[in-house]
Amino acid sequence: MSHILPYTGQQTYDLHVAGTVRRLPLIQVAPDTWIAYYYSLGDTEVIHRAAKILSPKLAQCEVLITTEAKGIPLAHALATELGLAPYVVCRKEKRSFMVTPLEARYKPITATSEQQLYLDGRDAEKLRRRRVGLVDDIVSTGETLKAMSSIVDQAGGRAVANAALLCEGADRPDVYHTGILPIFKGV
Amino acid sequence: MSHILPYTGQQTYDLHVAGTVRRLPLIQVAPDTWIAYYYSLGDTEVIHRAAKILSPKLAQCEVLITTEAKGIPLAHALATELGLAPYVVCRKEKRSFMVTPLEARYKPITATSEQQLYLDGRDAEKLRRRRVGLVDDIVSTGETLKAMSSIVDQAGGRAVANAALLCEGADRPDVYHTGILPIFKGV
Repeated sequence: MSHILPYTGQQTYDLHVAGTVRRLPLIQVAPDTWIAYYYSLGDTEVIHRAAKILSPKLAQCEVLITTEAKGIPLAHALATELGLAPYVVCRKEKRSFMVTPLEARYKPITATSEQQLYLDGRDAEKLRRRRVGLVDDIVSTGETLKAMSSIVDQAGGRAVANAALLCEGADRPDVYHTGILPIFKGV
Repeated sequence: MSHILPYTGQQTYDLHVAGTVRRLPLIQVAPDTWIAYYYSLGDTEVIHRAAKILSPKLAQCEVLITTEAKGIPLAHALATELGLAPYVVCRKEKRSFMVTPLEARYKPITATSEQQLYLDGRDAEKLRRRRVGLVDDIVSTGETLKAMSSIVDQAGGRAVANAALLCEGADRPDVYHTGILPIFKGV
């Protein structure tokens, strides 16, 4: 099933996510392209439901990794479901408190230039020789997952599963998720 | 009881937080001042315990507000305990997706200059005429709480309670919390 839908002037899209529904506004992002805009921060119900659905898939993970800010609620909720597992958070800026931070470059779909992810060396220690689950809120190009995977490698951990609330534009068999955000193309 | 302790060359401090203990490194932040460094992001156990302790104090809140990134796990966990209440997240940069964002200036203790908090107008709508709980991870000067309070006012909500994992340097009777981070002064 394709997740590229025809744009026919509709204003909203009813997204099925984690067993519930959210009515989303359509936003034009290019002359012929619209996206359904979902903002997960603060949607306690969806995060809670998603953690219940996704946590069994991550049962083999010893620690999780995510990226600020929007990955944090799902990572926290999954870590809680997994018996208070630890998780680490990649930051988007190097912070003064960091000790020997690891770094990975990536280009998020919403950005115009390359960006960096940083992980404090203290957090990198928590990944070493561990089975790591990668957590994101929406997977579009997969660039953020790739950058987190590089950080896991650098830290000496092993990335064993990917989980996200949603995939955008296409299903991804390598990502456990709870719904798909379509992309709308005009004629 | 004072929370300014003498610095006598110790390397660590055992923080009692949310009914458990974390051994923290001491970090020098001025010629005569050391802080116990606690990083809450990823400490699933402490967040989970703190949400259990603090949520009854916020029972009258209809919605929560916090600030990225470190306030998010506690806000999510509290919102979950409060029956899947909604929460909104102040961002530290204005984002392209925001509609008529609200703005407040503040000077965090860790920053050298004034900064801004921004709340998307869509999120501001969720605060209007609501009883709002303010959530932060560590309250030091209280500047972040003050900025969030200004945003709640601008949105037409009513700030009715403050909650944090920790207060730093002093107890704050106006903030529900689960522990106090001391400040260490050398001679």
